[in-house]
Amino acid sequence: MPEEKSSVSVMFEPDGKVVSGTSDTLLELALNGNVSLRGECGGAGTCGKCRVQIIRHYGSLNELTRTEEEKLSDDEIKDGYRLACQAKILSGNCTVYIPPGSRSAKREISAVGLDEDVTPEPAVKKIHIHIGKSSFSDIRPDLERLRSELRCPKETEISLGTLTELPKILRKSGWDVTVGMYGNRIISVEPGDTTEEIFGISVDIGSSKVICHLVNLITGETIARANAENPQVMYGEDIVSRITYASRKPENLGKLRRLIADTINFLIDSVCRQSGISPESVYDMVFVGNSVMHHIFLGITPKYIGVAPFIPAVGDLVSFPAKDLSLNMNGEGLVTAIPLIGGYIGSDAVANLLITKIYEQDEISLVIDIGTNSEILLGNSEKILACSAPSGPSFEGAHISSGMKAVSGAIESVKIEDGNVIYRTIDDVKPKGICGSGVIDLVAELYREKIITGTGKFRDLSHPKIKVDGVPEFVIEESFDTGNNGDITITEKDINEFLLAKGSLKTGWTILAEKFGIEPSQIKKVYLAGSFGTHVNIENAVILDIIPGIKRENIVFAGETAVGGAKIALKSVHERRKLEKILEKVEYIELSVEKSFNRRYIRSIPISRDKN
Amino acid sequence: MPEEKSSVSVMFEPDGKVVSGTSDTLLELALNGNVSLRGECGGAGTCGKCRVQIIRHYGSLNELTRTEEEKLSDDEIKDGYRLACQAKILSGNCTVYIPPGSRSAKREISAVGLDEDVTPEPAVKKIHIHIGKSSFSDIRPDLERLRSELRCPKETEISLGTLTELPKILRKSGWDVTVGMYGNRIISVEPGDTTEEIFGISVDIGSSKVICHLVNLITGETIARANAENPQVMYGEDIVSRITYASRKPENLGKLRRLIADTINFLIDSVCRQSGISPESVYDMVFVGNSVMHHIFLGITPKYIGVAPFIPAVGDLVSFPAKDLSLNMNGEGLVTAIPLIGGYIGSDAVANLLITKIYEQDEISLVIDIGTNSEILLGNSEKILACSAPSGPSFEGAHISSGMKAVSGAIESVKIEDGNVIYRTIDDVKPKGICGSGVIDLVAELYREKIITGTGKFRDLSHPKIKVDGVPEFVIEESFDTGNNGDITITEKDINEFLLAKGSLKTGWTILAEKFGIEPSQIKKVYLAGSFGTHVNIENAVILDIIPGIKRENIVFAGETAVGGAKIALKSVHERRKLEKILEKVEYIELSVEKSFNRRYIRSIPISRDKN
Repeated sequence: MPEEKSSVSVMFEPDGKVVSGTSDTLLELALNGNVSLRGECGGAGTCGKCRVQIIRHYGSLNELTRTEEEKLSDDEIKDGYRLACQAKILSGNCTVYIPPGSRSAKREISAVGLDEDVTPEPAVKKIHIHIGKSSFSDIRPDLERLRSELRCPKETEISLGTLTELPKILRKSGWDVTVGMYGNRIISVEPGDTTEEIFGISVDIGSSKVICHLVNLITGETIARANAENPQVMYGEDIVSRITYASRKPENLGKLRRLIADTINFLIDSVCRQSGISPESVYDMVFVGNSVMHHIFLGITPKYIGVAPFIPAVGDLVSFPAKDLSLNMNGEGLVTAIPLIGGYIGSDAVANLLITKIYEQDEISLVIDIGTNSEILLGNSEKILACSAPSGPSFEGAHISSGMKAVSGAIESVKIEDGNVIYRTIDDVKPKGICGSGVIDLVAELYREKIITGTGKFRDLSHPKIKVDGVPEFVIEESFDTGNNGDITITEKDINEFLLAKGSLKTGWTILAEKFGIEPSQIKKVYLAGSFGTHVNIENAVILDIIPGIKRENIVFAGETAVGGAKIALKSVHERRKLEKILEKVEYIELSVEKSFNRRYIRSIPISRDKN
Repeated sequence: MPEEKSSVSVMFEPDGKVVSGTSDTLLELALNGNVSLRGECGGAGTCGKCRVQIIRHYGSLNELTRTEEEKLSDDEIKDGYRLACQAKILSGNCTVYIPPGSRSAKREISAVGLDEDVTPEPAVKKIHIHIGKSSFSDIRPDLERLRSELRCPKETEISLGTLTELPKILRKSGWDVTVGMYGNRIISVEPGDTTEEIFGISVDIGSSKVICHLVNLITGETIARANAENPQVMYGEDIVSRITYASRKPENLGKLRRLIADTINFLIDSVCRQSGISPESVYDMVFVGNSVMHHIFLGITPKYIGVAPFIPAVGDLVSFPAKDLSLNMNGEGLVTAIPLIGGYIGSDAVANLLITKIYEQDEISLVIDIGTNSEILLGNSEKILACSAPSGPSFEGAHISSGMKAVSGAIESVKIEDGNVIYRTIDDVKPKGICGSGVIDLVAELYREKIITGTGKFRDLSHPKIKVDGVPEFVIEESFDTGNNGDITITEKDINEFLLAKGSLKTGWTILAEKFGIEPSQIKKVYLAGSFGTHVNIENAVILDIIPGIKRENIVFAGETAVGGAKIALKSVHERRKLEKILEKVEYIELSVEKSFNRRYIRSIPISRDKN
């Protein structure tokens, strides 16, 4: 006999999010409700990471499973802990507390940022029509009668998939249908009035993370968000190793493409489930990404982006049918790529322009999006210069002895007071390592406290926090206090790695300023784009010359600019059409061929007292 | 050690066709050269049908195989007979005679007919360009540089498949490429200069036969032809049973669609092999068919064509990418459907208009395309009336006791002289039955010889050729002389079946004439369209009122008008654009709703002396 599923409801604390559904495991319900909950083993019961505490419940849960008896301690069981993948709420409702260690959230993605509000003017239009029934006195074919009711010209195209469904839908609906048009192409015919159901998604395909927002294109409202790791990291953390892998043989490119498409499909599924919308109602997608992600997603080899002169295959605004990209949305809907600026400066940078709107301001602004390759934009309504600074992975916690990504347990901010290191970790759990924003703070503090020189050398190896057995290292936290094995430390080599990275950034914006014909001090506004930017301590970023030293109130945390910029273009074809004009103002500067590059770079590496 | 294949050459008689290739069986060589040769067992050596005679040879053949020793008589072996599937020409060249019994040809498809010559103006244009190599001083993306060299606007689209190949092809070719454009869409980029290689195919999807012509779209020349049975006959000989089958469930429609697509792919493969052309160089396809074949091939249900008021889903000129129809040609090429006139009068009739050009003549012409449903067109440059006459399958030899299709052994013409029946069979072999053209002759002769009355009854059952044990039947040939078991005869019921069919035709053209406001005698020209028409004895057709009685020299055997008309549209976009204007002149007449239909039909069934 099939299991009877009853309607249940769970409140997940501390967020207070309520998820309703049919009887299922807590993990399933959490996933459906986009509640952050770890489940590394995919619910197989092997990782034991999804511990949750049942605070109260009205109704019934299943008995403890054998897996739970193995994975949970007696104390935990006494305190009402369960594994979310095993605990099933059979009826009624309950309140569940998710302890920090069970939250999948690394650092919460900052949704705070620039307002991406624009008047909705979607690319897909829907028209509700009623067609007279066919008869011997009107024997025109279905499509002809449809077109004539729509008053659209004979040249109006229709996709084959829509045409094959047309006769059935017209008759099933009693000749009362809603027609979806993309430009002068009929992409859907649906029974009844569905004019209110036009949804779209904006996607930021990052090298390490993919972010997806679902938008109601009638109201312009963002109705769901989801993000996932970019599984391509299996084939290399950095862009260069992915280019290498993809270029080796055609199958590899196909493999990387499928990974991205699958991830986007997973995210579409997630945002659609969150909001109870059918993926078939998603007619439009606009995506951004660096040039390599952009190419791989479209199935184009990134090989020639990887070798001088770093030429992309396509940089314009291009659109392709969703079905050609095997996306789980309306197959006749379109997928639009935001233009690229150059081989190493992708459409994420263009999204940054769309959202910061520096292209329409008189004052000169600087936009910095920090990553392994950091995109830097400088300009105003007259002209915009763009470059990519190869800042390396140290901002993402890589190539640093105790470095880690910005996930649970990472030290994200540091202060040194009276010789003591004070820090905060993500999720307030025991520290496991240090992430990018923590490194910025740490190096700035070490310099401010005169523990290191401007070139990153320890001044005095007898400092109580410096261990010298072997390579000298500054100890942030000792092993017995960490959630990890071993000390959390930083070495001169680590500091040097970081100085090279931040030097690259400074080189970028100083060369752009020079090219623009201004002093960095003439920059009126700085936008820190991307979620990393929002976690940076501004004072320390200025000390380290990551950004020019301007007034605090003129520095803007722009938030998730990439997906936000894509969303502007998604919501409005008017904004999409602007892109060409905006890009005419942009000039790409290839740093590596600049004569002053080496000189400026060497001068930018040390921490210096005289700013700019 | 792999067998060394040497270059060989075979002339097949009596056609005198020379096929060159590498050492292979004669059957393989014949198939490659599209030489008509039977091979029912597919070359397995079991059917023994592919007997051929080696007339002379320079070079060597393999020894007789054991299979040949079994299948061939001693006399045959002495006369140099071989089985084509066993005999392998190892080197040199030879001349081979194919006796009638080994020819697969049913009746030769008549290629004689109207001249389909038009000035080539293909839909696909190719442009050979040389692009400057990319460098740091020109970092525009590949596509942008391509477009700028082509001087085409930024809106020019490119298919995803072409874009993904672009970077590789540009570099492999040394930036020297040929671009294929379909309208303002880039559909191919090929290395070097391939401007001379633009091929297209025209296809006639008949209910029983599919015909395919390969055309060089630069010269306009037809370079290969192939045809195959429509395998859908498995699901019913007539259109109605295919509509029924396709409407039962969606999988059935898919099954019928695949059968047609597979057949077309087989024919594409065949014409491409004959002419040594890659299917990738076939960029354009134009097809015609009755409404049901048209819909099924596009994957659209024919259900509503089958029920009153017989409405097609689409009747306009529509085009779809070849890849959406899983065709084995250039996937980015387009497949264009010639418009339909109505539910029961398909694009084959439109092709008949294109090729007969009655739409541009002052005099009034009649076009008759005889089949299970016969399309009839009447008109001139002012107006054209069209109808479909449900003439039934007797013209195709069905529903007649000794009836058969027009294949080897069918009696195709008959004369009665001095009480003796004189006939000719297809391929001059022993008779197996009688096909449509034979039935026309036979009935006309029986009437002329006063053996039957005008209503098809035997006047005198004691006639020496009439057998009366059981149902009375006129004996054409007795069993001991036929290649079949049993006599070849015709009964009153058979004759009646035929009279109903021919009556339907006459009803059609008399109603059209009435609607047009003329007497049938005012028709100045009659075009007999389709390959069936070319085998009809004109005098007998006039006696039986299949066509109006006009002067012999004003009756035109129009030949394979359907595939020919499609070819006109294939060769010239100018002609394609004309279609809309031509169709504005056409008015569809639904015979079944005409008041005078029943009266006229009953009057049209008997054979009458007063013509028209």
